[in-house]
Amino acid sequence: MDFITNPKIDEYLRSLVNIDDPVLLKMEELGHRLNFPIVDRLVGNFLYLITKIKNPKLIVELGSGFGYSAYWFAKALRDGKVVLNDYKEENIEKAKKFFKEGNLTEKAVFEVGDAVENAKKYKNIDILFLDHEKSRYLEAVKELETNLSENALIIADNVLWHGKVIEENPNNKTKKILEFNEYMFKSGKFFSSIVPLRDGILLALKI
Amino acid sequence: MDFITNPKIDEYLRSLVNIDDPVLLKMEELGHRLNFPIVDRLVGNFLYLITKIKNPKLIVELGSGFGYSAYWFAKALRDGKVVLNDYKEENIEKAKKFFKEGNLTEKAVFEVGDAVENAKKYKNIDILFLDHEKSRYLEAVKELETNLSENALIIADNVLWHGKVIEENPNNKTKKILEFNEYMFKSGKFFSSIVPLRDGILLALKI
Repeated sequence: MDFITNPKIDEYLRSLVNIDDPVLLKMEELGHRLNFPIVDRLVGNFLYLITKIKNPKLIVELGSGFGYSAYWFAKALRDGKVVLNDYKEENIEKAKKFFKEGNLTEKAVFEVGDAVENAKKYKNIDILFLDHEKSRYLEAVKELETNLSENALIIADNVLWHGKVIEENPNNKTKKILEFNEYMFKSGKFFSSIVPLRDGILLALKI
Repeated sequence: MDFITNPKIDEYLRSLVNIDDPVLLKMEELGHRLNFPIVDRLVGNFLYLITKIKNPKLIVELGSGFGYSAYWFAKALRDGKVVLNDYKEENIEKAKKFFKEGNLTEKAVFEVGDAVENAKKYKNIDILFLDHEKSRYLEAVKELETNLSENALIIADNVLWHGKVIEENPNNKTKKILEFNEYMFKSGKFFSSIVPLRDGILLALKI
């Protein structure tokens, strides 16, 4: 496993970001304790900023876990909603508690089940956040194409896959991620950029 | 000098970005030939995307060189203007030629002289791009505070300064950059994030 960002630079970036929301701190603590993958505070902070700039009405997440990224999205929303999706009911139950504690429940919709199928119920998605099963990213984008709003932004986490994307003999999952990145940059349907924060965030604006 | 992003990851990111604008290619070639610092295609690509999301009316650059970043901004503008500023007339003359060649002249205003003083003429700046003398970033932000629009975004290049920000004994210029970053994250006037692309890009949204 190769690293993506120089660990000392990463540490410096972390030293600049100050989190004072007790609910976010509690979620980080839970993620750490359960060794549950969350996008982390550098990415959360970045998602918040992008959401503030974009000012979306509807954000749909695929793969919300217990709601860490969704919580950042909700905080940044002016008057829209974020839809959380997870296949595990216990994750969504935890998310509900955190959102209640942070007074953000009215900005959220909670869904349990297959993320792509659930997302199909929503039209005019302004931000689609992909953080579910990595080998299903490309399928999700293709299946949800008509559910996106005119200037929709797709944000995908883990697109550098712990640095595995540069391995000489990538495994099947890594190949799926490489294929997804290739599509997002070269299909002509999106204008894309990858930000090498933590595990790699892809931003893709619908053309 | 420490590196910021794993060079192999950087190479992978570069392999995804395809530039087909002959003027941009010519500018990159000139930057390479003169060893003139330009933001490079990964950053240009990212600036384009952020500009598309933000949809600004007025972008003001401090330190435009021969116009590489400004050219990306201009391409992304729907109906606004980008103001180029450089203290060297010969740089601005080169920029004018490139903009003419790319049919982007009507989206640009060209200024020669002290970047901060020139920028003071402009009100309601939606994006302020800092790429002039690094030790003057903080001064620029303070002096131009009232020239920013309500939801202005400040974008600053080189905020990780070739990795020097993590050195044990930073020199004076590096200290100035550290002080600038500290201010952008902790003054309470901005919501900030640093993207470790190339030499580090700071995005700061006015609160």
